[in-house]
Amino acid sequence: MGFKLRVYYEDTDAGGIVYHTNYIKFCERARSELFFQQNHLPSDGEKSGFVVRSINANFLGSAILGDMLSVTTKVLKRKKASLILEQSIYKEDKLIFKMEVTLAFVSNGKPKIIPEHLHNILDFK
Amino acid sequence: MGFKLRVYYEDTDAGGIVYHTNYIKFCERARSELFFQQNHLPSDGEKSGFVVRSINANFLGSAILGDMLSVTTKVLKRKKASLILEQSIYKEDKLIFKMEVTLAFVSNGKPKIIPEHLHNILDFK
Amino acid sequence: MGFKLRVYYEDTDAGGIVYHTNYIKFCERARSELFFQQNHLPSDGEKSGFVVRSINANFLGSAILGDMLSVTTKVLKRKKASLILEQSIYKEDKLIFKMEVTLAFVSNGKPKIIPEHLHNILDFK
Amino acid sequence: MGFKLRVYYEDTDAGGIVYHTNYIKFCERARSELFFQQNHLPSDGEKSGFVVRSINANFLGSAILGDMLSVTTKVLKRKKASLILEQSIYKEDKLIFKMEVTLAFVSNGKPKIIPEHLHNILDFK
Repeated sequence: MGFKLRVYYEDTDAGGIVYHTNYIKFCERARSELFFQQNHLPSDGEKSGFVVRSINANFLGSAILGDMLSVTTKVLKRKKASLILEQSIYKEDKLIFKMEVTLAFVSNGKPKIIPEHLHNILDFK
Repeated sequence: MGFKLRVYYEDTDAGGIVYHTNYIKFCERARSELFFQQNHLPSDGEKSGFVVRSINANFLGSAILGDMLSVTTKVLKRKKASLILEQSIYKEDKLIFKMEVTLAFVSNGKPKIIPEHLHNILDFK
Repeated sequence: MGFKLRVYYEDTDAGGIVYHTNYIKFCERARSELFFQQNHLPSDGEKSGFVVRSINANFLGSAILGDMLSVTTKVLKRKKASLILEQSIYKEDKLIFKMEVTLAFVSNGKPKIIPEHLHNILDFK
Repeated sequence: MGFKLRVYYEDTDAGGIVYHTNYIKFCERARSELFFQQNHLPSDGEKSGFVVRSINANFLGSAILGDMLSVTTKVLKRKKASLILEQSIYKEDKLIFKMEVTLAFVSNGKPKIIPEHLHNILDFK
């Protein structure tokens, strides 16, 4: 279920647990992997792609060195030029992190309608 | 004004701009620096310290290699065992990132009243 | 063959390729994974473990966003309290990075003989 | 003396000290800063710049959260299309890391003679 990853030394900090912003990086890996799995880059040409507009994150638990985590991603809302995704990180069955992320599709820095084939890649449940 | 930092290669990604989660790391540097400046660690003994409970972030602009950024921090709300801070990142006069972060003070994993001397360190405008 | 990993945005920099030190992080992941695969942490109790003493690295090629890389690890030399490993990173069949890393086993900051069960974990070809 | 930096949480790992590859990142910051200080990017146009060819690093000590470190850089050898630098990291007066790094100047992926104005920027003692 979801995108799996291992926690390595680089992900932890002197507090002995995963450094807080790294959970947000793990979610980005999971989003990118959705594209890679379909032999696609998370962009449509050099000048257009998704950018993160906002993140609303809750840190509910913690992970340590060696943990296997899984990241799930679902679409909360689809608009013409943006998407809201909900991403959750689990340590075994325990939810340790949850965020809503708003992604805008931009071309040369301006909002653009999301191309159909990219919408299809994100057509997961 | 605020905490100053330079954008290095490590902070950027293949999109040519700062990788989105790094703005959140920059805010953590600024919070920690408030403590370091007063010869204090951002914790009170090995087993107690502030942990991030939630982040509500808006990505309003972007920074590139070599940019000098400044991070401002103010207290939005003080509670007995937690704090809400507002942190903003500026590129010259332009606001490029803003977040609210809720920090809880914990000891051995449990909520604890924030010690007075730590509250004082955060007594900035 | 070896430890597989994907290149994500966080691994790249504004030059469009993987940031140079990240190849060295990829090698650390591969070393740690050898231990994790055997349900072991890369240390033997809180106060003892391997530390990196030296690295001699050659950057022979480059990787980009989305690449699948593999890291191979072999023991070049075994001593009582240290090891020299050779680690190579391949992009498909192409060698893009190679390093020799000397690891010392330390306990409370002092050199210590490597415990037999840890030597056995590293008994790969 | 040299380039100064603070150790933040993001630089440390669960071992309680700075993650080994981050010393190599600190050296890159110091190299880039030499260029930024002269209002220059560490490249000469989009398609040319210095790339790291090899690193020979010795980890002699360690740093922890909150430490102020300084990085010194000197030129060991100048060639037409490459440079060898020696970079050292100090924690107060104590040398904790030292490396030799070979940088090649490349344009569109091919070796190129280092432009004079870039050589001048690196004309430090």
